[in-house]
Amino acid sequence: MNAPEKFKADAARVDGAAVEPLPNSRKIHIAGSRPDLLVPMREITQAATPTALGGESNPPVYVYDCSGPYTDPAARIDIRQGLPALRAGWIAERADTETLSALSSAFGRKRAEDPQLAGLRHAGLQRHPLRALDGRCVTQMHYARAGIITPEMEYIALRENCNRAAYLEQLQASGARGAHLAKLLARQHRGESFGAAIPAHITPEFVRDEVARGRAIIPANINHPESEPMIIGRNFLVKINCNIGNSAVTSGIQEEVDKMTWAIRWGGDTVMDLSTGKHIHETREWILRNSPVPIGTVPIYQALEKVDGRAEELTWEIFRDTLIEQAEQGVDYFTIHAGVRLAYIPLTAGRMTGIVSRGGSIIAKWCLAHHKESFLYTHFEDICEIMRAYDVSFSLGDGLRPGSIWDANDEAQLAELKTLGELTQVAWKHDCQVMIEGPGHVPMQLIKENMDLQLDWCDEAPFYTLGPLTTDIAPGYDHITSAIGAAQIGWYGTAMLCYVTPKEHLGLPDKKDVKDGIIAYKIAAHAADLAKGHPGAQIRDNALSKARFEFRWADQFNLGLDPDTARDFHDATLPQEGAKLAHFCSMCGPHFCSMKITQDVREYAAREGVDEAAALERGMQAKSVEFVRQGGEIYRKQ
Amino acid sequence: MNAPEKFKADAARVDGAAVEPLPNSRKIHIAGSRPDLLVPMREITQAATPTALGGESNPPVYVYDCSGPYTDPAARIDIRQGLPALRAGWIAERADTETLSALSSAFGRKRAEDPQLAGLRHAGLQRHPLRALDGRCVTQMHYARAGIITPEMEYIALRENCNRAAYLEQLQASGARGAHLAKLLARQHRGESFGAAIPAHITPEFVRDEVARGRAIIPANINHPESEPMIIGRNFLVKINCNIGNSAVTSGIQEEVDKMTWAIRWGGDTVMDLSTGKHIHETREWILRNSPVPIGTVPIYQALEKVDGRAEELTWEIFRDTLIEQAEQGVDYFTIHAGVRLAYIPLTAGRMTGIVSRGGSIIAKWCLAHHKESFLYTHFEDICEIMRAYDVSFSLGDGLRPGSIWDANDEAQLAELKTLGELTQVAWKHDCQVMIEGPGHVPMQLIKENMDLQLDWCDEAPFYTLGPLTTDIAPGYDHITSAIGAAQIGWYGTAMLCYVTPKEHLGLPDKKDVKDGIIAYKIAAHAADLAKGHPGAQIRDNALSKARFEFRWADQFNLGLDPDTARDFHDATLPQEGAKLAHFCSMCGPHFCSMKITQDVREYAAREGVDEAAALERGMQAKSVEFVRQGGEIYRKQ
Repeated sequence: MNAPEKFKADAARVDGAAVEPLPNSRKIHIAGSRPDLLVPMREITQAATPTALGGESNPPVYVYDCSGPYTDPAARIDIRQGLPALRAGWIAERADTETLSALSSAFGRKRAEDPQLAGLRHAGLQRHPLRALDGRCVTQMHYARAGIITPEMEYIALRENCNRAAYLEQLQASGARGAHLAKLLARQHRGESFGAAIPAHITPEFVRDEVARGRAIIPANINHPESEPMIIGRNFLVKINCNIGNSAVTSGIQEEVDKMTWAIRWGGDTVMDLSTGKHIHETREWILRNSPVPIGTVPIYQALEKVDGRAEELTWEIFRDTLIEQAEQGVDYFTIHAGVRLAYIPLTAGRMTGIVSRGGSIIAKWCLAHHKESFLYTHFEDICEIMRAYDVSFSLGDGLRPGSIWDANDEAQLAELKTLGELTQVAWKHDCQVMIEGPGHVPMQLIKENMDLQLDWCDEAPFYTLGPLTTDIAPGYDHITSAIGAAQIGWYGTAMLCYVTPKEHLGLPDKKDVKDGIIAYKIAAHAADLAKGHPGAQIRDNALSKARFEFRWADQFNLGLDPDTARDFHDATLPQEGAKLAHFCSMCGPHFCSMKITQDVREYAAREGVDEAAALERGMQAKSVEFVRQGGEIYRKQ
Repeated sequence: MNAPEKFKADAARVDGAAVEPLPNSRKIHIAGSRPDLLVPMREITQAATPTALGGESNPPVYVYDCSGPYTDPAARIDIRQGLPALRAGWIAERADTETLSALSSAFGRKRAEDPQLAGLRHAGLQRHPLRALDGRCVTQMHYARAGIITPEMEYIALRENCNRAAYLEQLQASGARGAHLAKLLARQHRGESFGAAIPAHITPEFVRDEVARGRAIIPANINHPESEPMIIGRNFLVKINCNIGNSAVTSGIQEEVDKMTWAIRWGGDTVMDLSTGKHIHETREWILRNSPVPIGTVPIYQALEKVDGRAEELTWEIFRDTLIEQAEQGVDYFTIHAGVRLAYIPLTAGRMTGIVSRGGSIIAKWCLAHHKESFLYTHFEDICEIMRAYDVSFSLGDGLRPGSIWDANDEAQLAELKTLGELTQVAWKHDCQVMIEGPGHVPMQLIKENMDLQLDWCDEAPFYTLGPLTTDIAPGYDHITSAIGAAQIGWYGTAMLCYVTPKEHLGLPDKKDVKDGIIAYKIAAHAADLAKGHPGAQIRDNALSKARFEFRWADQFNLGLDPDTARDFHDATLPQEGAKLAHFCSMCGPHFCSMKITQDVREYAAREGVDEAAALERGMQAKSVEFVRQGGEIYRKQ
């Protein structure tokens, strides 16, 4: 099953399932201030409302799109060539990097020269890496602090706004009931943000300020120019990460690339490659060259492979070479478990499930073997030097995160979190971007404590949590046990949610598991955005609900997170194509449908003199909904 | 596809998948104070800990069991005969009922006499119904208020305690590391109960007091003697309900019975039969005669069938006959949408999705057609008279619940809730048991308001909520959008969670959907129990986590909510039987496993003089866990 037997670089092909456009959707690009700044979005077209119900047109809805060129029929995809280097010009014009004549890492050079790997290597391995010029810092934080708005920042501002202004404008023009509907569809409930402050309209200046403050990061390695800029921070849309990666036991290169393209199709904002097998260097290259989203790794995994799994034989030199190897491939963020201090390790001895983080346990073993602090901690400033030379963001790992409900919020976990806060200040001193990893397994009543301590101790550096799982009793369903926790911690302020698949604790996820995990986490992230009162978050809910009420079945499917499954489920009961035009559904049948009765009630009420618009106004006051602030501004301006 | 073509009563058979015992599980019975009081539980046997890790035995874990006799190999199951009438003696000895010579309902008699239905009818239709003697009240609330502890109440007390005392005792005796482990496994995090007050040990007196107070209900129709008593209230384990039912479009009798036996296998605490097709009377009879869990219905659905779907033709007489028909079959609770008052209906005119409750829209249509309050409202005390004569519990329906995020917590919804609180007081005056139905679609930040208003306005009558769904954008995954909301509202105080399946809004659930919905809701309910700090709730999490840490794969599967899926997922990656004994798993492979490293760390720490028990004590103090109060009491006593 290992890669060498199966995988031939020449024969590598993009997964057909990943390149189909989604139904009734097309890729659009919002133009920025310069011709090479085009921000992709997905436009979902809707049918008009049936005449009997008003007959108005329903403007297209725009949604954030992580899928890169894959879902664009105009793009030519050849994974053997990789994606176009979208950001290459932006990086070059900053004139603060040099092109290296050779890879700086000894391991990287060895792999590049090994003739046995020729059939596995991606063509991109031929590319020469970039590095900051001596003494320069190339992080987005550095630019932000210098007051510079990079093209990446402008790109992100446009991306986060999701073309909302255009939608709201089109809404106003959508037929006779337009003005009334615009109010309905553009309003949302007041949120509870717990201190987050998301502006109505994201400006490039705001992006810059948040990055300068350390409250958000833009993972954007200069050697990953293929990536479409995105941001992780509590004052932006909640993001999700998807883990992929082969292991010594299963999976090959083609399969991992397929998982990546599949993951971004369904909304993965970043992807972590957690491979631990034989060809992780080559696998990573294939993933990076084809990924439009930031890629994260846990470099200690590969370092451990280099010492044949003997943690105590790890050295700073091996680890350093690994960091440079991966930084020059283009990894956008590294999980670094530098908070696992020697003194915290015995605190785990009384635990139910000890140390469950792989990285944490490797470091713990090393620390005990050597009776000293790990090289991650003692060389932390050296690591910062590397990170700033390529703009690799820190993801400070929670090596002592709880692996069971029992172990949640214990002394070991919280001691490490405090150290991560101290390391954040060190990294910021070097203009390095930082996010903080979080648990794990946490019962609901203890989740908020995690968030509050993190915000306090880590000075609002973005929190990036795994779940948390809210119970241990459902192996096979941990995407659900954890989506419950993820929605809550996202609401409280977590910036990115690391997905959990149904296979967690049991096996390696296949493509179906990856999708199941992603959809569960898109739900959690969106539920969090709604609860925070993110301006405009409710637009998609409103549009979908209107389609549902009006029996626009296809629109209901297409506006959802997974149109294919929605359609399949509908068709399982009522397969005839005509049923998708019918004003009833399988739950109640044609003669007894609550939605139909409601329409009758509404018409009746109108005949009785109940004015719909007045009722709406009254309802909005009663609910204290607020106008999408973005919209408010737009309309005042024009 | 309709029943008559397919279904033959003589040929009806129990679903084979529903009668298999769960792996490593056996049905035990806890004896009460009288020989006919035997409370079933599922005992899950565990393997001993591997010698290298301590070698202690791991006592069996006891879990609440809704599956009735089906999973008991000693039981003879013939769905044509139905289940034994477990409670018949208890009902008879109260000497407050009479056996009727014929069905009281005209419709019931007509169906019983229709020769065309002979092949469909369950044998139980021959049984004569019971009714309270003239002037008597047979509700559990009535007995409770009279100070009587019924066998039902004692049964529930034993059931809610889940044999915890035996588990904790066995834990103490589990080998060399016993005392230490007992502490670990019997402790749990302090909860946040938001005012719920769950005692350490549930006594029959406590059950009685909660029922008398109206804070809990025991749905137990005297004509459903097959049911195993259970309780719904905020000071007990959070329960879940599963909806089944055919429609005019699909499903037959056998299929619905199969769904019921399947639903209780996976943990459905009650089942609602929402059938709307042609043979709902007969379908219901089959379900009731074979159901060990309470059955709920929405009688207005059937009443509407009787007037061919013309809501405005409904009358009190038709509805009354339907209530009596169903009460004499044994339905345990009725959803009654008596809170849909005339004045509230126009409040829905400005909504995004109008009235989505089927019952609510039927009543709304009737009210508008007649320009007056519905017969549910005007005849509410007459309904109480019927309920108390059979002990049917009210489930006061939320006919104006929101059908979209936009409509959440609006004036119409809250006006109805307030009326439901008033009706609760009326029902209580008649000693009728009441629970209150709740939404629906609610974004997270508005969930707590629902709970707080309900507790206040309905004087702590049990809340029974559908979800709530926390976003509208994921058709096909509403078991997840709603499990997120259900876990939260369960934590805040909801007593029973009505499941939502992946098919919600799209089609009728099949058996797979039913199971998916149930597992999602068992997770939500258990996460809520943990968060509330329900004494002993964490025992199963602790046991499963210990099994996980010790690589007892089979125990990890078997202690979970769905052993079959957990095992299948594991085997998908590592199918060999030997892998289930292996001290590694597919995620990391044999040479790189964080759990294995943790064991090394622990051993190392012990050699270095770090005492595990001392570390444990310290950890417990740091986390402010509390001893399972039940356990605490037991040990003091003995």
